[in-house]
Amino acid sequence: LCPGFIDLHVHAPQFAFAGTATDRPLLQWLETYTFPTERRFREDLKYAQTVYHAVVSELLANGTTTAVYFATLDVEPCRILVDIAFKQGQRALVGKVCMDRNAPTDYCHSTEQNIRDTETLIAYIYQTAGRRTSTGSLPLILPVITPRFIPTCTPQLLRALGDLAKVHSCHVTSHISESVDEVEWSRQLDQVDQKNISEGRSDAIVFDSYGLLTDQCIMAHGVYLQDDSDWALLRSRGTSIAHCPLSNFFFAGNVLPTRRLMQRGNRIGLATDIAGGSSPSMLHSARMAVVASRALHHHQNTQSNEDDVILDYRHAFFLATLGGAESLGLQDRIGTFRVGMEFDAIILSAANQDGRSPIHVFETDNVGDVFQKLCVLGDDRNIRRVFVQGKDVTVQRTR
Amino acid sequence: LCPGFIDLHVHAPQFAFAGTATDRPLLQWLETYTFPTERRFREDLKYAQTVYHAVVSELLANGTTTAVYFATLDVEPCRILVDIAFKQGQRALVGKVCMDRNAPTDYCHSTEQNIRDTETLIAYIYQTAGRRTSTGSLPLILPVITPRFIPTCTPQLLRALGDLAKVHSCHVTSHISESVDEVEWSRQLDQVDQKNISEGRSDAIVFDSYGLLTDQCIMAHGVYLQDDSDWALLRSRGTSIAHCPLSNFFFAGNVLPTRRLMQRGNRIGLATDIAGGSSPSMLHSARMAVVASRALHHHQNTQSNEDDVILDYRHAFFLATLGGAESLGLQDRIGTFRVGMEFDAIILSAANQDGRSPIHVFETDNVGDVFQKLCVLGDDRNIRRVFVQGKDVTVQRTR
Repeated sequence: LCPGFIDLHVHAPQFAFAGTATDRPLLQWLETYTFPTERRFREDLKYAQTVYHAVVSELLANGTTTAVYFATLDVEPCRILVDIAFKQGQRALVGKVCMDRNAPTDYCHSTEQNIRDTETLIAYIYQTAGRRTSTGSLPLILPVITPRFIPTCTPQLLRALGDLAKVHSCHVTSHISESVDEVEWSRQLDQVDQKNISEGRSDAIVFDSYGLLTDQCIMAHGVYLQDDSDWALLRSRGTSIAHCPLSNFFFAGNVLPTRRLMQRGNRIGLATDIAGGSSPSMLHSARMAVVASRALHHHQNTQSNEDDVILDYRHAFFLATLGGAESLGLQDRIGTFRVGMEFDAIILSAANQDGRSPIHVFETDNVGDVFQKLCVLGDDRNIRRVFVQGKDVTVQRTR
Repeated sequence: LCPGFIDLHVHAPQFAFAGTATDRPLLQWLETYTFPTERRFREDLKYAQTVYHAVVSELLANGTTTAVYFATLDVEPCRILVDIAFKQGQRALVGKVCMDRNAPTDYCHSTEQNIRDTETLIAYIYQTAGRRTSTGSLPLILPVITPRFIPTCTPQLLRALGDLAKVHSCHVTSHISESVDEVEWSRQLDQVDQKNISEGRSDAIVFDSYGLLTDQCIMAHGVYLQDDSDWALLRSRGTSIAHCPLSNFFFAGNVLPTRRLMQRGNRIGLATDIAGGSSPSMLHSARMAVVASRALHHHQNTQSNEDDVILDYRHAFFLATLGGAESLGLQDRIGTFRVGMEFDAIILSAANQDGRSPIHVFETDNVGDVFQKLCVLGDDRNIRRVFVQGKDVTVQRTR
């Protein structure tokens, strides 16, 4: 019996093409695959229903009891995602993606509409799942304010979203310092936006200037954040990083120094980043975090201290559970087991009943070996039961 | 219907601890985990039976129709592996591992015994599966001469094994230039062995000097082979490289420039390297080859030409099938479909009948997308039927 997995960054509509479309750099990838797919959700609500039902089911089957979902620009399909997660009993933070510039004309809204629709979705989530109170159990669905990333959001929009986060005291999420081209574009835009500064500021400073770096804010990637400046700023705000190791291999062009961030005291958790990452499994994401740390260790040459760099399966399991809860500021409610917390849990088993485990356990394995084999080789077949808020929400795959 | 997968490098006994024990550098790892486990196979033939049955079944379930197996030092458990692969109908090259120095005193044989036992196993394989002829179908089990690696083999042993390879005209396999410490140790030993040379030679030159680099030789890893010298030598001999991407993240400390080797015309295929690599799945190994190429691309900075470095799922699928057959010099018999070749094949399916696929196919997916999803997200559940030499050898997992 383990805490359920917490996936800090999932693009729910992109599940439609997860496992394909990793052949372009980030900005081209958005134009070629992402925007057309997400726009389709506006035009075809049945398709939205199909894909959202599939992604919520698949994540639950993989033991993800909490997911932070980016939906799409349009409020109607966002409601469908809220309904499906609520009905299936998955804990979810659902965000209407905001873009009011540098997006295709047929997939871009005005500043005002972005703000209005964000408020509409927040109200719908409260209506569906209730409002969060200091006592009582955590509502199953929480709103999350979601500017896609700095290049597609005007300063006016970012400021209004920062104000909204304050009014509702709700979560915020976005992408930060993901790739070289994104960082460069952000800086150029900021220089123009600010007029009187000599060079653009880093993503972290820009977000902070609009009140978006809060202790309920989860920023994805962060591969190009600077240690002395950006990391310290995130720490001082209590803002967390969603580490997306598989996606970073394809789109970031570098590896996040995860272990060092943990040592510095930055909040950090793990994510699949569907569909920048292909796999819906947090066990898979945990394994990729370990592999990524090895790649980083090669890169930094053999003089670097292993304890500063290398993650093992135990660190990765922490990031996938309690690290995620801390990143959401919800470590008193989920991510581990204590009296009074929500019961969000999975039963992980290596037993091969009904031919349902890919893992072989031998007489030479002790209990630690079995747990390690589950972390390193397990998949959804090893996740036998899933509970959210005390309720059994195990997905029965068609048999 | 696809060609079956060809796994060029599997340590069959190490399947016992696959998914654990990746926390030490190569040479310590051998002492701590590998030698004690392999020695146990001498003392406990029932354990050997259990582990070998598990690894052959698991590889077949994952669509591996041909495997190159390192067994152990002792001939008796090697026979068990031959029997199991033969009975289960998997095409296998089985090698008695040879070591006559720098190994634990209780897991090291004399030069003479290594040679005698290698001959005994070759005779046993011929007796079990028949001898290879220029006409007729390929025997199911083939012998492979298997010095573990240069540090554990005296020049006398390597020379005798080279002679044996010539007499039997059979395959050879070993490890080559895997890690910095291994390469350095090999060089130091060679300098002592050769007395009159000013510095030790590279692994490739040493193996070649004993007649072991042949066009039926598969060398694992090769991460530290030099382009101008070693690569050219391997090309001129027709010797192939077994690329072990997952293992290399943990033990090699660097990434093999796979794509460049392909472009140079070196023979190359793919391997799981159980248990340096944890997964028995060649689909997984193919994905890790893609990820490794991305890590290499980061490493080599953004100026490097992507076509020189980045592997996609199609390259990886080639390496897992026909690339493997070419690496074995068996491309006229296995690895693709042509009249007169052996029928070694798998049925790959994304269909979710009986809840048996982790892949979601949507109305927006074309046939190429489905194939890509199978490569990127598929597992043993997607491998519905397995054929070797025309015979259905599908493993029925306990249900």
